Amino acid sequence: MKILFELLNCTSVSGDEEQIAALILKHIQERKDNWKVVPKVYSGENHHDCILLKFGDPRTAVFAHMDTIGFMARYANELIPIGGPEEIEGTKLVGSDSLGEIECALRVDENSLYHDFPRRIERGTPLSFKQNIRLTEEFIEAAYLDNRLGLYNALKLCETLENGWVVFTTYEEHGGGSMPFLLKFIQETAPIKQALISDITWVTSGVRHHEGVVISIRDKFIPRRKFLQKVVRLAELSDIPFQLEVEASGGSDGREIQFSPYAIDWCFIGAPEDRVHTPDEKVSLIDLEAMIQLYQYLLPRL
Amino acid sequence: MKILFELLNCTSVSGDEEQIAALILKHIQERKDNWKVVPKVYSGENHHDCILLKFGDPRTAVFAHMDTIGFMARYANELIPIGGPEEIEGTKLVGSDSLGEIECALRVDENSLYHDFPRRIERGTPLSFKQNIRLTEEFIEAAYLDNRLGLYNALKLCETLENGWVVFTTYEEHGGGSMPFLLKFIQETAPIKQALISDITWVTSGVRHHEGVVISIRDKFIPRRKFLQKVVRLAELSDIPFQLEVEASGGSDGREIQFSPYAIDWCFIGAPEDRVHTPDEKVSLIDLEAMIQLYQYLLPRL
Amino acid sequence: MKILFELLNCTSVSGDEEQIAALILKHIQERKDNWKVVPKVYSGENHHDCILLKFGDPRTAVFAHMDTIGFMARYANELIPIGGPEEIEGTKLVGSDSLGEIECALRVDENSLYHDFPRRIERGTPLSFKQNIRLTEEFIEAAYLDNRLGLYNALKLCETLENGWVVFTTYEEHGGGSMPFLLKFIQETAPIKQALISDITWVTSGVRHHEGVVISIRDKFIPRRKFLQKVVRLAELSDIPFQLEVEASGGSDGREIQFSPYAIDWCFIGAPEDRVHTPDEKVSLIDLEAMIQLYQYLLPRL
Repeated sequence: MKILFELLNCTSVSGDEEQIAALILKHIQERKDNWKVVPKVYSGENHHDCILLKFGDPRTAVFAHMDTIGFMARYANELIPIGGPEEIEGTKLVGSDSLGEIECALRVDENSLYHDFPRRIERGTPLSFKQNIRLTEEFIEAAYLDNRLGLYNALKLCETLENGWVVFTTYEEHGGGSMPFLLKFIQETAPIKQALISDITWVTSGVRHHEGVVISIRDKFIPRRKFLQKVVRLAELSDIPFQLEVEASGGSDGREIQFSPYAIDWCFIGAPEDRVHTPDEKVSLIDLEAMIQLYQYLLPRL
Repeated sequence: MKILFELLNCTSVSGDEEQIAALILKHIQERKDNWKVVPKVYSGENHHDCILLKFGDPRTAVFAHMDTIGFMARYANELIPIGGPEEIEGTKLVGSDSLGEIECALRVDENSLYHDFPRRIERGTPLSFKQNIRLTEEFIEAAYLDNRLGLYNALKLCETLENGWVVFTTYEEHGGGSMPFLLKFIQETAPIKQALISDITWVTSGVRHHEGVVISIRDKFIPRRKFLQKVVRLAELSDIPFQLEVEASGGSDGREIQFSPYAIDWCFIGAPEDRVHTPDEKVSLIDLEAMIQLYQYLLPRL
Repeated sequence: MKILFELLNCTSVSGDEEQIAALILKHIQERKDNWKVVPKVYSGENHHDCILLKFGDPRTAVFAHMDTIGFMARYANELIPIGGPEEIEGTKLVGSDSLGEIECALRVDENSLYHDFPRRIERGTPLSFKQNIRLTEEFIEAAYLDNRLGLYNALKLCETLENGWVVFTTYEEHGGGSMPFLLKFIQETAPIKQALISDITWVTSGVRHHEGVVISIRDKFIPRRKFLQKVVRLAELSDIPFQLEVEASGGSDGREIQFSPYAIDWCFIGAPEDRVHTPDEKVSLIDLEAMIQLYQYLLPRL
């Protein structure tokens, strides 16, 4: 899990994914010759900060977003959110501007957000939750399990994947924007008909810790029923524990597949967490293991 | 009107359009050799559940959505909406899951929706309004006139159409998602510059039963004025009764044409209904007839 | 500034940009042979009412929207907004329908908007703020500085531009819709990796009159940090006065670049105004001059 800890300790608020992309790319370059199939790697300015790996002859793509929620310094000592962070008084935030490292606390007032850093922070500086990783026998707790665990799952999948795309995306937490050019590149390079979203979802009244990885039947958007049924049938055959989610809200990189100019089926599959979008996101290790197993089971069979 | 009754009796909540697509495709295959021009038919997994018909040398495409609003079973006996159905206590709903047929009533409470079916319904099962078709001399009343009448109009148009695309779409009631890939296919196969949306709109303070088919000047989105004026001028020449609609909200498959990467003009033309998105949608037969006539008048002249 | 006054006196509510496009095209045709580089001009029905100018070998495109906010006549004497105009009782509005010229006042009631014109206005007629241009030594005040100043800046840039696209867009005030087909055309004709949005922004607690052109670090959407830093570093070298903006809301043609299927970096650069979306928009001439200078500085250097 060394790479997971490295991912958790790297910041990458939406729009500022340069460092995490470099970390993931370094990991790929160091490991890929030991993977079952050596992928073709696409990265660099033509893909902004995204990374695409093509293994063999793909039918399916797996997408994992690299960005996180956070805050941005506005004027005076005001902050505005990036994505949808929970706004909890006193939350520790970190970042840096040209004057140096920043560590401060979030101040929440009726209408606005502030920081308590003793000096002004340069306009536009992104701030992240201060990381605090807690690993027990049953759970991992940390900031940004959404979507460091999705990245970790994608990198684990790379070890054994024979055919498929594994794609690391940006901007998911703040409305998206990299998926359209990534999908165009994929469809023009080695087109696919199916996509899985490697991301983290919510513990709710119907989705619980320790009951397995979640296959999402819908969030705000609704994948095609025919494809969902194919995924669920395979999951049933796998004997890997899984739960079905039905939500009226929420979204993922799947949204941009739904609205893309390609007839690609998609499904969100990921472990559930509670304390979503706080520094204390919490995921069951059983569910994380089921997530990793299910991806490895599905990719050769879809 | 046999096909209209078949369409009305078939369920197809957004995301689950497989059956209605099969019904429409069967109708097309049985009839097309008797149409004025035999169209080229595009369907199958490359187009998901959508169907495209190419007649002659198209300048204009007509789009009719096959999906409907409805509900989806969540956890316990909870339901969540698909699209924007009216939430009326006691509304009869139907569907089926792996345990059998379902007929139940909608229960509306302050914050949530429930069903009263005696057993649990499988997660993710779509439910539709129970159908009840009432045909009088003046009106048709039923669930899902939106957009069974739009489909019916499109199929009537097929009988005499010489040049044009007729396209059956999915997901319109729930944010869309098939239009982008359909438009790409059309523009790469036999490109068009104009589109009409064969769909049903609202009776309002300015749009009334029996006053003709509606040409929509705007809903939430605004077609290009130059194209609207061309359509209205032709409608005036036709002597077919029509009404002009100006709304601040609402949307259709036209939205995705507006935001597509193609310079295609679009206009919504359809009969108005009241009791929108209830099981008792009501349309004047005069307005439906005007809709059918206006499409047949416009397509050769646009 | 003759062309600026002509632009300010021309109406072009979203969806009805035909006249302003003709005005701009006429100006281009009359002047282009005197510009440093004569651009290739793309306009006409294939581009709807948009205009694209290609200078030399482009790396960057500049986008300026031609449309404005306004109102549309609905039923009886009701009006509905186009884009987001401020709704101020008594505002003078102008337009025309087939019965002749219209000048009336806006009536604002709790739930609706009305006009006081003595006769009915034809359904779907667009109305604009009555123009009233006030030029002092320090300020320009008028309706529609957003985005007549952005157009003016783009046309000034044309005089000296050697390499780049200058593009005049439609529909920006009402959700967009021309950017997707414009971007596709650009990328298939002479592709670019960078875009600047020539538009007008807001005076706020952190952005003030006379303090220079605004470089926007974010509005509702967030450009890529790496590109923003490149733009800001160049602006610092230029010695042209500029201000950094950080907003949580608002949007521009940049939004559609963010969500396009092309990996194109974008940044909004424009003078700030107060009394936004009223007939009394107000911009500092110092800030306008800085805007014009910064575009001319950046384009050769980006």
